Parts: sequence; structure tokens; C-alpha cells
Amino acid sequence: VSEKGTRRVEPRLPRGLQDFLPERALARQELIDRIRRAYEAHGFAPLSTGAVECFEALAGSGGQDANRQIFRVDCGEDEALGLRYDLTVPLARVVASHQQEIPRPFRRYQVGSVWRIDKPGPGRYREFTQFDADIVGTTSAVADACCVAAARDALEALVPAATDLPRRFRIRMSDRRILDAMFGAVGLAPERAHEVLRVIDKLDRVGRDKVALELTAGYVDASGDKIPGLGLPQDRVARILSFLDIRGDTRQDVLAQVAAFLGTGDVPERAVGAAREFSDLLDALGVSDEEAIFDVAIARGLDYYTGPVFEFALLEAPSFGSIGSGGRYDNLVSRFSGQAWPGVGVSMGVDRLLAALAHSGGLPHVPSCADVLVTTMDASRMRDYARLCATLRAAGLRTELFAGPPGSFGKQVKYADKAGIPVLVIAGTDELARGVVTVKQMREPTFASDASREQWLAARLGQTEVEASSVVAGVREALAAPREHA
Amino acid sequence: VSEKGTRRVEPRLPRGLQDFLPERALARQELIDRIRRAYEAHGFAPLSTGAVECFEALAGSGGQDANRQIFRVDCGEDEALGLRYDLTVPLARVVASHQQEIPRPFRRYQVGSVWRIDKPGPGRYREFTQFDADIVGTTSAVADACCVAAARDALEALVPAATDLPRRFRIRMSDRRILDAMFGAVGLAPERAHEVLRVIDKLDRVGRDKVALELTAGYVDASGDKIPGLGLPQDRVARILSFLDIRGDTRQDVLAQVAAFLGTGDVPERAVGAAREFSDLLDALGVSDEEAIFDVAIARGLDYYTGPVFEFALLEAPSFGSIGSGGRYDNLVSRFSGQAWPGVGVSMGVDRLLAALAHSGGLPHVPSCADVLVTTMDASRMRDYARLCATLRAAGLRTELFAGPPGSFGKQVKYADKAGIPVLVIAGTDELARGVVTVKQMREPTFASDASREQWLAARLGQTEVEASSVVAGVREALAAPREHA
Repeated sequence: VSEKGTRRVEPRLPRGLQDFLPERALARQELIDRIRRAYEAHGFAPLSTGAVECFEALAGSGGQDANRQIFRVDCGEDEALGLRYDLTVPLARVVASHQQEIPRPFRRYQVGSVWRIDKPGPGRYREFTQFDADIVGTTSAVADACCVAAARDALEALVPAATDLPRRFRIRMSDRRILDAMFGAVGLAPERAHEVLRVIDKLDRVGRDKVALELTAGYVDASGDKIPGLGLPQDRVARILSFLDIRGDTRQDVLAQVAAFLGTGDVPERAVGAAREFSDLLDALGVSDEEAIFDVAIARGLDYYTGPVFEFALLEAPSFGSIGSGGRYDNLVSRFSGQAWPGVGVSMGVDRLLAALAHSGGLPHVPSCADVLVTTMDASRMRDYARLCATLRAAGLRTELFAGPPGSFGKQVKYADKAGIPVLVIAGTDELARGVVTVKQMREPTFASDASREQWLAARLGQTEVEASSVVAGVREALAAPREHA
Repeated sequence: VSEKGTRRVEPRLPRGLQDFLPERALARQELIDRIRRAYEAHGFAPLSTGAVECFEALAGSGGQDANRQIFRVDCGEDEALGLRYDLTVPLARVVASHQQEIPRPFRRYQVGSVWRIDKPGPGRYREFTQFDADIVGTTSAVADACCVAAARDALEALVPAATDLPRRFRIRMSDRRILDAMFGAVGLAPERAHEVLRVIDKLDRVGRDKVALELTAGYVDASGDKIPGLGLPQDRVARILSFLDIRGDTRQDVLAQVAAFLGTGDVPERAVGAAREFSDLLDALGVSDEEAIFDVAIARGLDYYTGPVFEFALLEAPSFGSIGSGGRYDNLVSRFSGQAWPGVGVSMGVDRLLAALAHSGGLPHVPSCADVLVTTMDASRMRDYARLCATLRAAGLRTELFAGPPGSFGKQVKYADKAGIPVLVIAGTDELARGVVTVKQMREPTFASDASREQWLAARLGQTEVEASSVVAGVREALAAPREHA
């Protein structure tokens, strides 16, 4: 590639996109691996689809607002294309195309990028990674409970807590059927449910008072915009809000309050009965009340979901809001196919998760890729360094051979520091002649309280000379030695 | 999402794209994991970038033909965007943007999709996955050797062979400097190198005779198209071809023949000397002649590369050609930045690898995600099944609870077969009352030759009744029992 006459190009990221440099990319990969193992332990199998879909498949399923968010793709041919904006459309398309080949129920996970033309902002990107798990082709409450149990295990793997310590995440759950029964109990016409749900959905964002105003007479917001009200009578709104206030420490306690509020009748009893069955299955699957609680105030996407809905939060990063959600839906595949494949799913935002954990200091500590760097002191002895490297790697140690200019010790220590490599092997001309190498720990060591002055000095320096033939043992020892993490 | 009045959409994939259903997705994930572990063991760290790049960053670096292959992306704003067509442009952009933050040399791997508007065909897709590993910011031969050693370990992990059996892959290597020295030795003007290399690059595809014709008078191909010749004299072409015929069983043997051909002089001696240094480093890193051999006939991308070039093939799938390649380049970052970050890299085509291994029967056997399916026979005992499931999972067994309609044994066995789950736990009303469960192997078992009739019958059925309290041990035994793979 000739550079002559080529204009310099600014190394610029498109608006709303981000790069993951190694440290962040390693942490991100670790999060994805943990979620993957959790879902695989529940029998979810991977599905992988392309980023590009026919525009027709993408458009319409999420309404006009969603259509405007789709990145259009042009391949110079007569085919309207776009980048997927979620992993649900590809799932529906695949299920519709392969109904005979796939097992039913189909229990799949998919992790991948999705693209939306959103206004970029802190923590808001136009390309982000979703991790979805769904069970489709079944209406069974077992599927609902399996999804929550799997998500519980994924969350526990992401932010592990000791058995006797409180969980560090919370799954909040509600049910569309309970909300519908509540609307019946307060005398709201079913056709108004959609607009009321849309307002209730703002509870977390705008608070209880503004929701009350929007359900009644409306209000003028801080920017001077008029927010029109739905015109519901005050007493009805008071009852709705008192319902949304229901809280309890156990699922059974919340359901008892819900049952008392809803009263008797077919619709409320079926709704509460279904939630009890679901909760009993969670008990049997070992999902505790602390891990997954009912909270009838979560309304997220309730106009899309038809049964249980879920929302996940990290307790140490409340400002990041939910890092995942899900629920039961009925119409997944019907856009593509006559056959009904009702299902239930959970979706986590990997990038928001990463940002939340980074913010709370809860990112998993992922060691650098190399355990040890073999430094190159003497340009005429490169083959010796390469052989040391081969010996260490053959012993299972992840070993890097310094590939920059040989000779400068200081530069190579600085390199190891930047790359996060914890141990160095150093051998100058003289050492190689004597058949020894120096093993150096990069991090400050800690000491036993009864350490001798000699031990202290040796450890303080973090350097030990070992026979070249014992280099593997020497590096293992340096790696195992307790160290302060930077 | 209301379906009323919604037109049915055909569940169609865009031209040249593909889906990976679970079995294939699992194998693909396994290949990626193996390559990842191999590169990480050599100190390569992950980099992750978005799919969308500024069009300006993509355009031009690969010439006009490459520009026509770029998928254009439209976000409705005044920013020309495109999908990346390789992982090299993102690397260059990241290095140019983060020169102060990243260690130098920068040793990174990246795995991800790239998009090219190619004519789709069998095994040719418009979205495919590349796995790249590069060391940039150094001209050292150590970096070249490290890349080949890492690629060797990745290939060995992909198609492992027993120590005493022949390797199942081959790395062929040449060097731009040797080719240049050869052009000098046969008296070819340096400015003609580019066009001659372009023709030599076709050796694998069109064969020796047509290359000879294209270097001299040209020819008319099978479709009647005139392929113009370069007009080199016959004797010069004969010498070039005799050079390209050089073969040998060891790197030293090939280099000795090359040195004899090139004769004495500064240019050939420097070129052969550099190749010897590189080969010696490979020796020291434990890369054998069988694994990586010099072959001066590979010319792949030699007009782009400036030093060593590499090409990888699977020996059991020769028709798939190379499944990866690489080499040393000098101008990676200069389009974006004044600073030179020369480097060396290797790139594997994960999808071609997958296709080649599937074709040769060499795909790794990846077990289904679940070890065991807990079937649901009695709708009134779902909580018992869920508890069995929790017990098995707590013991570390990847356990799926059947989430379809309970009751039909036949349907659940069929489901397990389709999902590839090797073991079932079955408990009907009667069994649960007696405190036992049946553990069933899905695959035909094999037998010891001295098996008794009773053992044979029990094993033939593949079913054992165990105490419910021993279900973990029962499932472990069924999983450990030797089975014929389907």
C-alpha cells in the first residue's frame, strides 16, 4: 500500500461508538463468559446470526419510533437492508425458517452487537452488546421459572457474594395479568390499559407525584412543556397508586397483599394463582425471595409482555438502573409465520453491566494474558530467550517474549507494567554464562509478620536468582507469592 | 405488539449471509475459544471495536476494488459510514488514537465479523468472522517468529495430533526480501516486481503453465477472454519458475537452495541472512520444520507485505485452500498518524475453518449444553421435578428442566434426541411415591466382552432405577458410561 500522495485521515470513531482496549476488553470477555456458562448450565444453546437483516424483517415490529432508529445498510443492490436493533427479530426469523429442524421448546442464548440511532451520551452508545436467553414454543410457567433461575445464576456469577452475605443483585418481577386484574378491580376500561401502563412505566424516572398528575390533570414540566393528563378521577388514581405501593419481603407476602387488594372473582384469582404457581416453581428451583421478589410497580414493556415481567438491578450501582429485563410474550414469530411460538426471555445489556461494575469497583479482576515476560537483554542471545520462552510455555505458563528492541531493562520493565504482566524473567550475558536467570515480581509483595530481614530484603526487591533449569519453578513461585494488587 | 393488519413478512436472510444454529454455533464457539487461548498463552490481549467505521477510514486503504466491496451505512446524519471489511483498519485507527496509552510493542488479538460485498457462493459469505493477531510497533524478527509460533499453537489446538503422529496443518512461509533478491538475480527491474508478483500469486489457482504464459505472451482462457502477457523473455521466466520450484524438507535445506540460486552480493545475503535469523528463532521457540516450512512459491499479498509472509492450510482439507495468512507490513498506521508502527500479523478465517473442518469430519465434538434433561411426566408434580433439577445443578451438572407440555414420554425423548442431551431423568407419579427415579442414557451403550446377560439387558435398555437421593451419582454414572457417538 503506497502512501505517496495519500491524504492523512483522522483516526476518528463514528458518533456513539466505542473501542474496548485490552484491559476493558478482557473484563468484558470475562462477563460474557460468565453469563454464557450460567445459561449453558441451564441447557440454553447458542445461536449466532449476522448483523445485517432485510429491512422489511426489522421494520414494523417495534413501531415507527423503532424504525427511525435503524441503521440502513446499502450494498449497491436492489435489497433494502439494515443493522439489527435487537436479538429478538433474528430469533423470530430463525425460528420461522427452521421450525422443523430445531427442538421445541427452543432454548437458545445469543450474545452480540445491536445498533440503534439514539442520541449518544455518557454510557449511551449506538452499538452495544446484548446477551439474550429465551425459551420459545411453550406457554408453560416452567419456562418462565427456568428463565428467572438461569438469570439468577448469571447475575450471581457476575457479582458473586459469599453464601452468608446478602446478594449483590435483585430481580424484581411483576405480571401483566395481575396489572390487568388491578385495572378491573379499580374499574378502568381494558382499552385504557395501554396508556395507563405507559405512564406507570415512568415511576422510576419521574416519581410518584408526577405519575399521579399525568394520570389525572397533567402538568407543566421543568422545561415548560405541557404534559397532558389522562383525566382519570382522583380516587381511581389514588387506588392505582396504593396498589403500586404494595411491597413485601417475601413473594408470598406480596401476593397475599395483591390478593387482598384484588378481591374475589375469576380474573384476579386466575392472575394470583398463576403468580403463585410461578413463585412455587422458583422456590423449588432454589431461587430465594431475596434474589427475586414481586414488585407490582415495575411496568417495563408491560404493553408488549403478556405474563410475567422481570427487571434486574445491581444493588451497588443503583444509578445505572436496570441492567437487564425480560418477560413472557406471545407474538414473537407470528409476523413471519402462521405458527404460534409463544415464549419467555431475558436480556442483559453487557455494556451497561460493564459500565455499572466499573463505576462500583466491582469489575472482575482479570489478569493480563501473559503470566510472565521473558525480557531480552543481549541482542546476540535471542535464541536463548526464545528457548526459555518455549520451556515456560510448555509448562503451561502463558509466556510472552519481548518483541521490541533488546537491551534496555528500564523500557522492558515499563512495558511489563503497562501491559500488566506480573512476572519478568531477566538474563543478561553474564547470567546466561553462569546458567542462571533472575525472576522478578512486578508488584509489591506482602510479608509474613515473622519474616527475617533477609527474607524481607529479597521480597522487597521482588527478585530471585534461580538456576536456568529451574526457571519454571521460579516463575510459579513468583506468581503464587501474595502480592498487593495495584 | 399488535398483529392486526400486519402483512406477513418472509423470514429471509439477506443475500450472502448465514445463521449458525446451535450445533454449528457451539462448534464455532469452540474453535474461537481454542484460538483465543492459544494467542493469550503468547501474551496477545484482546481488542474489541465496533462494526461501523467512518467511510473515510475504510476507503482508500485497500484501493478502488476494495472500496466497492464496502457496505455503506446510513444513520440519517451527515456522516459517511461503512461496515469494516477487515480488522486491520480498526487496529490502525486504535493505535493511532491511543499511542500513549497502549504498550509498545502492542500485541493484540481481535475476533469479529467483517463485511464485504462479494459475489456469494458455496462457502463464500458477505459477513464472515476473522481472527487476527498482530504485534505492532516493532521491526524485530522476534515479533515475526512470535506470530508464527502463536499461529502454530492455534492450529495445533484446532486440529490436535498425537505427539508421534504427523501434524494436521502446515504453515508455508516466504519473504518479500527473498523475492526481491530473486528479481535482482534474474535481472528484473524493481519497478516490474509488483505486476510479476500479481501473476505469481495465481500459481495455486491457475497452475504453473498459465503463469508462464501470462509472464510472457499471454493466452486466451477457457471462457475466451484474452489474458494479456507481461512480455518477459522466455529464459528469464524459466529462471523465475525454476526458483519458484525450490522445495525442501527443512527450512535450512530450502534456504541453502535459495542462497545457491541467488549467489553472492549484499542484497541476497541480507535477505537469506534475515530468513536464517527468523528460522533460528522458530527453532528456539520449538516450531518444527514439519510445522512451518519455507516455500518461495507463495506470493500471497507480497505487494503489501515487506518481510516474511505466511499461509496456513489444513492438510486434510486441501480443497479449502489457505485458512489463514499473514506477514510483516510497514505502513499500518501511517494513514492515520505521522508515527510509524510497523508490525507483523496473522489472520484466520473462522468460517472457512469451520467449513473445512466440517467437510473433513474434523469438527471438534462439542457436547450439548445440558448434560441431563429432567423430564416432566406428571403435571401435578412440577415442583418435584424442579427440585431434582436444582439438586443436579447444585452438584455441577448442567441440567435442563423440560419446559414443554408435561406428560408425553415419547415427545420428551424425541426432544432430548433433537437437542442432543445425553441423559434423561424420568420420574412418574408412581416412582416419585416410591422415592426413586429412572436415569436413561440416550445413546447406545457399548459393552465389556465379559458382560453378563443381566448387565447387557440393563445396559441395552440404557435405563437404571436409582433412589431419588442418589440421582446425582446415577446421572454421573450414566454420563461416564462409554457410549457410541451418533
